[in-house]
Amino acid sequence: MRILVVGATGTVGSAVAAALAGRHDVVKVGNRRGDLTVDIADTSSIREMYKQAGRFDALVSAVGKVHFGDFTALTDKEVRIGLDSKLMGQVNLVLLGLEHANDGGSFTLTSGLLSHDPIRFGACASLVNGALDAFVRGAAIEMPRGLRINSVSPGLLEESLDVFGAYFPGHETVPADRVAKAYVKSVEGRQTGQTYSVL
Amino acid sequence: MRILVVGATGTVGSAVAAALAGRHDVVKVGNRRGDLTVDIADTSSIREMYKQAGRFDALVSAVGKVHFGDFTALTDKEVRIGLDSKLMGQVNLVLLGLEHANDGGSFTLTSGLLSHDPIRFGACASLVNGALDAFVRGAAIEMPRGLRINSVSPGLLEESLDVFGAYFPGHETVPADRVAKAYVKSVEGRQTGQTYSVL
Repeated sequence: MRILVVGATGTVGSAVAAALAGRHDVVKVGNRRGDLTVDIADTSSIREMYKQAGRFDALVSAVGKVHFGDFTALTDKEVRIGLDSKLMGQVNLVLLGLEHANDGGSFTLTSGLLSHDPIRFGACASLVNGALDAFVRGAAIEMPRGLRINSVSPGLLEESLDVFGAYFPGHETVPADRVAKAYVKSVEGRQTGQTYSVL
Repeated sequence: MRILVVGATGTVGSAVAAALAGRHDVVKVGNRRGDLTVDIADTSSIREMYKQAGRFDALVSAVGKVHFGDFTALTDKEVRIGLDSKLMGQVNLVLLGLEHANDGGSFTLTSGLLSHDPIRFGACASLVNGALDAFVRGAAIEMPRGLRINSVSPGLLEESLDVFGAYFPGHETVPADRVAKAYVKSVEGRQTGQTYSVL
């Protein structure tokens, strides 16, 4: 298969690219470096990326920012950081990618455990992750030409413990190479409308 | 209790206002008519509404638009109709209402069954409803001064069957006065971070 991995320079994306590389033609898409680059918050940048990428069988997205901060001081603007980046960035990768995907191809997005297991400062992430998992359920039943769509909802990454660990007291960690298996399951399996939780 | 019902002129909102009216001081907030008016897509209009409303013990929101349409032709702009109205409209009612709510007060938002039981043309509603239910879970654990937050996720309203029935083949309907009970449960009970599904 020809597989686009958006966010291939990140912790999860690079693990997914490595897990798929042996058996597939993997195209690494990054924000600033990679085989191709894209700014997912900009629909014209997504269109340009797809034009350069050509046809593909699977798209994996492991990208997107969300704001973390005290709920009692949260603003509309801060919530919209996640709406524009992690949520609509990934939704637009699907909407604009449909016509470039081969019959029977798939889209695999990234959400996260905070949709169901919230933490202090994490309300924006809860909102965005819940939106993504529900979008996947809604989109799956309308996908044309046998196309599929799933999301992977990882827990706290072992590799992110130093940076984000203080936000996640008592959380067990999961190594990126275990999380990567869920993306392989989505890409090489036949399920659709699913959220694979990896904790 | 002093209770603001936003969307009080709508099918659900008017049923909620009726269910609460006997025991409470209900302030009806509509888009164009009511004791007060508000445009939930405009944060300055929300601020102005709260300034006029004064202190309150509970806010109920049963408002918001989402786009319905063919997934394969869906655009960023169409998805954002629901983000700006039903999602951020209700989120901003909470964020901007925190300082006006009395200690121990509550916010009750409206999502809907499409987050988990999708229909054709309904992907935007799935996304927005999933976002709202997850936001409620995230926000609940950071609410100051004993404030609470829940959502009500209704199925297809009996009163909406004529207008929306064709979109929901085979769906059972639920009368608005049954849905209203879930809002009463949220307002007069002590639970928080919950989504009450009424099917």
